[in-house]
Amino acid sequence: MKGKLYGVGVGPGDPDLLTIKAKDIINGVDVLFCPVKGDKSESFAYAIVEPHLHNKDVEIVDLTYIMNYKWNEIEDQWQKNAKIIESHLAKGKRCAFITLGDPTVYSTFMYTLERIAMTDYELEIIPGITSFCATAAVFGKPLTAWQETLKIIPVRKNDSAHLRDQIANEDNLVLMKPSNDASTIVGALEELGLTKNFKMISKVGTPAESIVDDIEQLKNTKIPYLSTMIIKKGGFND
Amino acid sequence: MKGKLYGVGVGPGDPDLLTIKAKDIINGVDVLFCPVKGDKSESFAYAIVEPHLHNKDVEIVDLTYIMNYKWNEIEDQWQKNAKIIESHLAKGKRCAFITLGDPTVYSTFMYTLERIAMTDYELEIIPGITSFCATAAVFGKPLTAWQETLKIIPVRKNDSAHLRDQIANEDNLVLMKPSNDASTIVGALEELGLTKNFKMISKVGTPAESIVDDIEQLKNTKIPYLSTMIIKKGGFND
Repeated sequence: MKGKLYGVGVGPGDPDLLTIKAKDIINGVDVLFCPVKGDKSESFAYAIVEPHLHNKDVEIVDLTYIMNYKWNEIEDQWQKNAKIIESHLAKGKRCAFITLGDPTVYSTFMYTLERIAMTDYELEIIPGITSFCATAAVFGKPLTAWQETLKIIPVRKNDSAHLRDQIANEDNLVLMKPSNDASTIVGALEELGLTKNFKMISKVGTPAESIVDDIEQLKNTKIPYLSTMIIKKGGFND
Repeated sequence: MKGKLYGVGVGPGDPDLLTIKAKDIINGVDVLFCPVKGDKSESFAYAIVEPHLHNKDVEIVDLTYIMNYKWNEIEDQWQKNAKIIESHLAKGKRCAFITLGDPTVYSTFMYTLERIAMTDYELEIIPGITSFCATAAVFGKPLTAWQETLKIIPVRKNDSAHLRDQIANEDNLVLMKPSNDASTIVGALEELGLTKNFKMISKVGTPAESIVDDIEQLKNTKIPYLSTMIIKKGGFND
């Protein structure tokens, strides 16, 4: 039997935002790969699927992904995780890699997939609810409507000119990982008169969910890693 | 009892891409509002939820949304549909409006919601799988990765200068409703040497799904209404 790998988006945090397809797959596979930040931390993706995982025979395999910018370490880790996944596929197993949000939007799954020799195996990717759709839903306002555009950008360290430019020019902007450069975001919002045009949620849909939509609060809050900010030129009250 | 309105994203087409939350809500409400194109057409959103709808007592209410650019007619229709929804909410009913993809991304639900006097009622929006995430999943490639950006734009008629500009300048571009100006898209892809950098799917996840990724095919195909195109500067083969 030929091994099969599923890349399964589990959404941003609420277990009930899992799709029916994702639920069926995690309950039908032999192996579940769960990304973890370090050897002792728990997998957030696993915590999301756990309430819907009734497959008692599934083998849980943690894969470590340390979050830093040391390229050699990251490449080593991706290669190592790719080899672990290959070893299970080579035995003809059905395997699911669970990943936060959607697998095709800034996901570690895709970086790992590129390093797996998939020639002999099947692949299926299951889309997931993105953090930005879940965040907009909480506020009851469109992310984007009618002729407007929507841009999604990852906030990087040492990228302030580009970030200011995006905040100045886009109709609707989603900032992924705003914790990487909160001071540039605050500066641009003030400079552009957009201090009332943003909303941010950390850990949307989880018991730890927190909302920041006041600029003073933004200045004084330590932004958690899993946060998404929406900036709307048209505002949130139209 | 206070009426409650749910705006429920049902995803792009595959019934199993409904979330567990969406399934629970459609099976728990008193009224299900289903957008239809005309009085005699069937609701595509209803076709998506039907396999998972086991609530025999739910009242199905079709709401007509004619797709044209006659502003007076459109406004009249939005107002009329808002009034129909209000009349059910006023009776204290729990109501779900089902909408393709995600409710916050170019959805008719939000235009209607703005016209409902919601002061006395509760609102909850349930995010859905977007067509662009489902489309990228089919190809097994990231929509956007690492430092890249992702832009989503609606293709409009008579907007070719703006459309060309976007195709020229964005890392990763999603074109919603490419059927509105296929000739500008083809022209820009040829001019910019990007004829191998696009993929398009119509009716993703349905039995009528069709893929176009050859420029000659794009020139000669009548693009259906429910189509999504991805253009990647980095290509699909990296």
